Amino acid sequence: MNIALILAGGLGLRMNQESEPPKQFFVLGDKPVLIHTLERFERHPEIDAICVVCLQTWENYLEGLVNHFGIKKVRWIVTGGDCRQASVFNGLCTLEKDCSPEDIIIVHDGVRPFITSEIISQNIETAIRYGNAMTSMQCTDTLITSHDRKTAEYAMDRDSSYSVQTPQTYSLGYGLKHYRRAYEMGKTSMINCCELFIALGEKVYMVNGRKTNVKLTTRDDIAYLKFLNSIFHDGDEDHIE
Amino acid sequence: MNIALILAGGLGLRMNQESEPPKQFFVLGDKPVLIHTLERFERHPEIDAICVVCLQTWENYLEGLVNHFGIKKVRWIVTGGDCRQASVFNGLCTLEKDCSPEDIIIVHDGVRPFITSEIISQNIETAIRYGNAMTSMQCTDTLITSHDRKTAEYAMDRDSSYSVQTPQTYSLGYGLKHYRRAYEMGKTSMINCCELFIALGEKVYMVNGRKTNVKLTTRDDIAYLKFLNSIFHDGDEDHIE
Repeated sequence: MNIALILAGGLGLRMNQESEPPKQFFVLGDKPVLIHTLERFERHPEIDAICVVCLQTWENYLEGLVNHFGIKKVRWIVTGGDCRQASVFNGLCTLEKDCSPEDIIIVHDGVRPFITSEIISQNIETAIRYGNAMTSMQCTDTLITSHDRKTAEYAMDRDSSYSVQTPQTYSLGYGLKHYRRAYEMGKTSMINCCELFIALGEKVYMVNGRKTNVKLTTRDDIAYLKFLNSIFHDGDEDHIE
Repeated sequence: MNIALILAGGLGLRMNQESEPPKQFFVLGDKPVLIHTLERFERHPEIDAICVVCLQTWENYLEGLVNHFGIKKVRWIVTGGDCRQASVFNGLCTLEKDCSPEDIIIVHDGVRPFITSEIISQNIETAIRYGNAMTSMQCTDTLITSHDRKTAEYAMDRDSSYSVQTPQTYSLGYGLKHYRRAYEMGKTSMINCCELFIALGEKVYMVNGRKTNVKLTTRDDIAYLKFLNSIFHDGDEDHIE
C-alpha cells in the first residue's frame, strides 16, 4: 500500500499576520492550499490512502473541508507535534497500528500544492528500489553561509548543492526505525526526514523536483502560487511550458 | 557617481533551444528582458550611468534597442568575456578609464528584470558603509550536497544558508583590486563577485533580496516572469502583495 502523509501542522509564523488562519488554509482560487495538495494525491492512481497531520484546534475544520471537497482517500487525521520531526513521528506511529512495515509512506508538505504526479510516481519507485527517496533540485544560485545574518564568510559549491523539497518517501518500517533511533540519540529538531536520515549516517536517494513544486512560506510566494493556479488545470501541472 | 554594470554576455545554454536569441533578449510583454532590467536602473534616482557587458555579436542589436526604448543612462557597451568573471573584469577595466576608484559599481544580472528600487538603494548604502554589498536571501528549503547527482550524504543548516542574487556592489577601486588579485592567484572561474571576494578572505555584507528578483535561468522561469510582468506596473515592483 502507498500512503501519503501530508503535513499540515504548522503555524506559518514566517508568513502570517496575527489572527489569520495558518497558511495551509490560505484560499487559493476556490479552495484552501491544503485541499489543492490533497487533490493531487486523491487522483493519483498509485496512492491508496492519505493521512493528514493537523493542528489540533483545526482538526474539525479540516474534516469538514475534506468532506466538502470529496477527498475520499483521507483515512487518518492525526494531531501534529510541536515541531516537524514530532509531527512526522506522530503520523508514523498512528499508521503503525493499521499498516504493515512494507507499506510506502510519501511524506509531503500540505503547502506544496503543485506537486506533479510524475514526482509522486518517481518517489514511490525510488523508495521501493533503494529504501528512501528525497525530492530535490540543483541550486541555481550561489550559496553563502552566515551566522550573524549580516556578513557571510563561506561560499558553497553551487554545482554540488541541492535544495530539498518534498515528497520524502520510505517504507513505514524504515521510517519508524530511524525516527526512533533519532529520539534515542537525543536528536529532536531535525527539519525533515532527509536531514534526519543523513544525521544517522544514511545515504539518501534523490528524485528530481520542479521549481513549480514550491512551498508557501512567505507572502512573496502567494503571488507565485496564484500565478501557478491560474495556469494549471486538473492534472496538467506535469506539463508546464 | 553610482554606476550600474549590467551583465548581458551569457549564451543562456541552460535554457535556449538552438537558433534562439540569448535569453537576455527574450521578449517579455512588449520588450526584451534586458530592457526591463535597464529601465529599473534608468529611472532610479541614485543611478548616474549604466555600463552593459554584452555578447560581441549582439552589440549593435543592443545599441538599437537602447535607442529605441530611450535608455539614456547607457554610456558604455563592453564586450563580454568567456565567463562571468571575465565579463565583470572587462566592465571594470573599461570603467577605470573614465571613472574614479571611489565610484560605486552596482553589478546586476541583465536577466533579473524585477529588481526593486529599494534593493538598489540598500546596495549603494551598504557598499558605501562597509565596502561591499551582496544581495541574498535566506534559504527556505534544507540543502544537501551530492557529488554523483544521485545520492546525498551531507545536509547543511538551513538557517545559516543564503542564496546569492544580484546586485553585488562595491567601489571601482575595491573591485579592480580584488579581481586583479584573483587573476594573479590563478582563480579564473569564480561564479560571481561575492564568491570571488570570499575566496580572497573578504567578509561580504548582505542586503535582503526578494523572491521576485528572480533570474531567468530555465524555461520554467519564463511563465513566472510573464506573470510578474502582468502584475507589476512601472515602479510598483517594490510593493507586491
